[in-house]
Amino acid sequence: MEFSSKLLENAVNEMAQLPGIGKRTALRLVLHLLRQPEHQTFQLSEALSKVRAEINFCKSCHNISDKVLCEICSNTNRNEELICVVEDIRDVMAIENTSSFRGLYHVLGGKISPMDGIGPQDLNINSLVEKVKTGKVKELIFAMSPTMEGDTTNFYIFRQIQDHNVAMSTIARGVAAGNELEYTDEITLGRSIIDRVPFEASLKS
Amino acid sequence: MEFSSKLLENAVNEMAQLPGIGKRTALRLVLHLLRQPEHQTFQLSEALSKVRAEINFCKSCHNISDKVLCEICSNTNRNEELICVVEDIRDVMAIENTSSFRGLYHVLGGKISPMDGIGPQDLNINSLVEKVKTGKVKELIFAMSPTMEGDTTNFYIFRQIQDHNVAMSTIARGVAAGNELEYTDEITLGRSIIDRVPFEASLKS
Repeated sequence: MEFSSKLLENAVNEMAQLPGIGKRTALRLVLHLLRQPEHQTFQLSEALSKVRAEINFCKSCHNISDKVLCEICSNTNRNEELICVVEDIRDVMAIENTSSFRGLYHVLGGKISPMDGIGPQDLNINSLVEKVKTGKVKELIFAMSPTMEGDTTNFYIFRQIQDHNVAMSTIARGVAAGNELEYTDEITLGRSIIDRVPFEASLKS
Repeated sequence: MEFSSKLLENAVNEMAQLPGIGKRTALRLVLHLLRQPEHQTFQLSEALSKVRAEINFCKSCHNISDKVLCEICSNTNRNEELICVVEDIRDVMAIENTSSFRGLYHVLGGKISPMDGIGPQDLNINSLVEKVKTGKVKELIFAMSPTMEGDTTNFYIFRQIQDHNVAMSTIARGVAAGNELEYTDEITLGRSIIDRVPFEASLKS
């Protein structure tokens, strides 16, 4: 792609480094900004550099937060004995949206993935182990994605913590609401039979 | 969507104002930037505000340019008598990529579209008429999109200029290379029969 302006080329190249945004899309976005009032670009530009420069993570759960302790960790109405272990802050948002969890979170910041060069030392695992060692935690819920990397991460944490007196569970795998049985893969369907739930208990949801 | 941080929320909201980028995608992009080294965000942010603040348009053809006259307009090897009228700078880039045009361009900056509140006065039409009045231009090629707005814009310019001694043509409409005839719409197919080209001339492309 040949550009008539170095400034434009530079902006497009920087934009095209974002995931899922190619050069053509980047050009479309930059040209859109050029057609809008100047302040829109300046606000975007400032918001991005500000969030990057001043970003802060909750010192307890590692969720993104503007304060030292995030709103969830500093909420005394929540159950401190129950900790949900998630990969990413998006998972916290997804679980909070369900309104069915009133414990605290622990954001690992990724999952163990040797193929991508991510080992346990790159994740917030030590602080989780320390938290368990204080003896305040009664149960850990693993809410990782059901992939090989997610399972590996769960198992690694399980081994670090198994000698401590804490219950560990993983979110249920089964058929998703609204899915047709015949299109469900066999691993999930098999798991959903093994982990079947008493019918009366299923009526509560 | 509930955010745990105002800074994050602000960055996501600004990002989500870009066309085709919803809140979820914006969040994914911002979180990606947070995982990258700081300088990547600062470079993106600076490139965007710089291109917006220092953007300059060629005073002759209105293409984006870092100089007063763009490289195409200041290239003495190009044919000044032939001007291709396009909607957008992306069209200049697309036509330049074909290497089949050696004249100059005139970027209108949009097309007449009453539905979007865009009239002739919002486009670079006056400067085109002035250019024609100098008498140096022999032919205008309309290369607008084949839509109602594009046709309206062509016709408006045609009426402004018809009293001057300048040839006006429009790019050929017809069957696209590689397309199956049976899937071509009837307007295009009909046009391609009316505008048929002597077979020997078609061998030259």
